[in-house]
Amino acid sequence: MIAVKKPTLLIDKTKVLKNLERMQQKAGAHNLQLRPHFKTHQSKAIGRWYRNMGITKITVSSVEMAQYFASDNWNDITIAFPLNLLEIDEINQLASNIRLQLTIENMESLDFLEKELKHEVGIFIKIDAGYRRTGVDSKNMAELERLTKRIDEITQLHFMGFLAHAGQTYRVHGADKVAEIHHATLHEMAQLKKHFINQYPNLSISIGDTPTCSVMNGFEGVDEMRPGNYVFYDVMQAEIGSCTYDDIAVAVACPVVAKHKESNKIVLYGGGVHFSKDYAEVYGKRVYGLPVKLNENGWGKPIEGAYVKSLSQEHGLLRVSDETYNKIQVGDVLGIIPIHSCLTADNFTHYHSLDGELYDHM
Amino acid sequence: MIAVKKPTLLIDKTKVLKNLERMQQKAGAHNLQLRPHFKTHQSKAIGRWYRNMGITKITVSSVEMAQYFASDNWNDITIAFPLNLLEIDEINQLASNIRLQLTIENMESLDFLEKELKHEVGIFIKIDAGYRRTGVDSKNMAELERLTKRIDEITQLHFMGFLAHAGQTYRVHGADKVAEIHHATLHEMAQLKKHFINQYPNLSISIGDTPTCSVMNGFEGVDEMRPGNYVFYDVMQAEIGSCTYDDIAVAVACPVVAKHKESNKIVLYGGGVHFSKDYAEVYGKRVYGLPVKLNENGWGKPIEGAYVKSLSQEHGLLRVSDETYNKIQVGDVLGIIPIHSCLTADNFTHYHSLDGELYDHM
Repeated sequence: MIAVKKPTLLIDKTKVLKNLERMQQKAGAHNLQLRPHFKTHQSKAIGRWYRNMGITKITVSSVEMAQYFASDNWNDITIAFPLNLLEIDEINQLASNIRLQLTIENMESLDFLEKELKHEVGIFIKIDAGYRRTGVDSKNMAELERLTKRIDEITQLHFMGFLAHAGQTYRVHGADKVAEIHHATLHEMAQLKKHFINQYPNLSISIGDTPTCSVMNGFEGVDEMRPGNYVFYDVMQAEIGSCTYDDIAVAVACPVVAKHKESNKIVLYGGGVHFSKDYAEVYGKRVYGLPVKLNENGWGKPIEGAYVKSLSQEHGLLRVSDETYNKIQVGDVLGIIPIHSCLTADNFTHYHSLDGELYDHM
Repeated sequence: MIAVKKPTLLIDKTKVLKNLERMQQKAGAHNLQLRPHFKTHQSKAIGRWYRNMGITKITVSSVEMAQYFASDNWNDITIAFPLNLLEIDEINQLASNIRLQLTIENMESLDFLEKELKHEVGIFIKIDAGYRRTGVDSKNMAELERLTKRIDEITQLHFMGFLAHAGQTYRVHGADKVAEIHHATLHEMAQLKKHFINQYPNLSISIGDTPTCSVMNGFEGVDEMRPGNYVFYDVMQAEIGSCTYDDIAVAVACPVVAKHKESNKIVLYGGGVHFSKDYAEVYGKRVYGLPVKLNENGWGKPIEGAYVKSLSQEHGLLRVSDETYNKIQVGDVLGIIPIHSCLTADNFTHYHSLDGELYDHM
C-alpha cells in the first residue's frame, strides 16, 4: 500500500478490469453494442483499459468531457446530455474531428442546429421512459414524429434512435424491483421501435443505468447499453444489488485524527469536499460511507456494523463497535467505500493505484 | 455580465467587501480578535481583500490550506482541525517559516509532537461545547488539566487557549435559536476561562461559527472569532437568519438545456459536481439551490417560489411558476444561489467576477 498523508482516492485495478470484463461479456451475450459511459471515471488512463479490451465507442455527459476524451483519440462519442446551445463552437470543433452523436429533446435545439451546425452529427432523441428527469415522454408519439420529421429536414443531422436512462433504479433495492422498472422501460422502448422501425430500419434503442445493465438478463428490443458506474460500483450499487461489496473498486484512504469513547466515534480527515454528500440507507441508518481495513493488497469487505454517520467540510464521523474502537488508533489510515463513486471521484485530481501508479482525473 | 457557456462560479466583489467590513466592524466593536476562516473561499486573490482591510491572522482547516496561504505571505495561521500526525513533515516545514497554531484534543497528539516537532508552535485545545462533532467535552476539567499540563512539559509547545465551533447553529432557524446555543457556548467557555485564567493569564477563548458571529451582539469572555462562511453567505445562512438574500455574494451561472411544461420544470446544466449535495428547507420543501435572474450588475433576490428540486451528476431540475416558466427559454443562463457556498466553491478552480476578472480557488 502506498504511503497516505491526507484523503487519497485509491483504485484497485484488478477489480476494475473484472467489472469491465463482466459487462463486456454480458453485452456480447445479448448482442448489444456496449457504449460505456465515461462520466464515472473521467480518466484517460482508465479509458485506455477499455480500449485494450476492444471498446471503441463511448458516452460522456458534457461537451468538456467529449473534448477531453477526443484528445485521447476516442473518435466515436455520444454526449448523453441535452444539447447545450451555448457550446456550439466547441461542438462544431468536435464534429469536424470525430463521429459525434448529440442528444436533443425539443424543437428549439433542432432549429438552432440547422442554423449553427457546420458538420454532420448523429442525433439521439432523449426519451423519458418513466424516470421523470428530462426527455420527451415515451408515449408522446406526436411530438416524436414532429422531431424526427424535423431531423430529416436538416441535412447535417442523422437520426440515430432513442436514448433512455432508467435512473429510477437508483432508488430501489433488489433485483425484483430493478426488473419491474426494466420491464416497464422495455415496454415503452418496444412501442417506439415498433412505431418508427419501418421508417428508420437502423434506429438504435439505447438504455443506460448500471443497475439494469448489471442485474438483468433480458434486453429484448434494445440495441445499445451505456452503463457507467459499473467500472467502480459503490455502496449505493451494492445496496441496490447491482454488485457485491467485493466488486467495489475505489476507496478513499482517510487519516484518523481523533477518537471519542463515549460515543464510539472515530474522527476522520475526510469530509464533504472529498466524498460529496450523497447518502444511502445501510443497517437501517443514513450512511455517508462504509469503512474498510486497508492492506498491501487493497481492502476487503466493510467493517461489520461501522459506518460514516456524518460529513462536514473536511471531517468525517465514523461510528464503530467497542471492539473496532479499540483497534483503531489516532494516526491510522482507514479506507472508506464511497456511497456514490462518480461524485467522489470528481472531487479528486488523481487515482492512486495500490502499487503506486497515478492515473488522471479530468 | 461575462459570457457563460457552462456552469460558472460568479462572485460579486461589492457584496464580499460589504460582508467583510460588517464582520470587521463587529469584531472591533466587541474588542474581539478577528481571525477569519479561509476554508470558504480558499483563494489567494480573495485573501488579499482581507489583507487590504488590515487582517493579518487567519484560520484554515487543513495543512494543505495552510501551505497554500503561507505561500501568499500569510504568516500567522491557525489550523482549526484536529492534528493529522501523518503530515508532520509539512507541519515542521510550515512552523519553520510562520507563526503556526495547531489544534489538539488528545494525549497521543502531544506525545507525538514531543518526539517529532522541530519548531515552536502554539497549541489550541479543541473543545466540544455542545456540537458533538469532535473535541474534549467542555465539562471534562480533569482531561483538560491533563492536557494543559502535558503541553507545559513540552518546550516547543505554547498553550494558546480553547477553541470551539458551535456548528449546531447550522441546524436552527432564527436569531432566538442561535442566541440559545450561543449563550450555552458562552457559559461553557466562561467556566473554562475561570478555571484556567490564573494559570494562563493570556489564554484565548476562540469561537467560530458564522451564524453566531453574524447574529449575536454579546461575546462576554470571548477573545477571538473565526467565522468563514460570512465572506459569501448562502441559502443555508439566509434561512438561519445570518444574512439577507441580498448579502449572498456567489452564484453559479447555469445554461438552460430543456423545459417540460407538464411539471413546470426547467432542466439546467449544473449538478452535484458543481453544487455538491447539501440541501435546505425553503418554502417547506427540500431545496438544492435557489434561482436568480442574472444581469449586468449581478443578481437580485431569488425568483419567488422557484427552487432546484433535485441534482444529479450534471443535471439540475428547477421547479418554477407558470409565469416564470414562460419567461425562461432553452439557451438562457440562470444564476443559482448555492445552499452551502463552501462546498460549492470547492467544486470550481476559479471565481469569475462580474467584470470578467478571474480569481483562483485552491
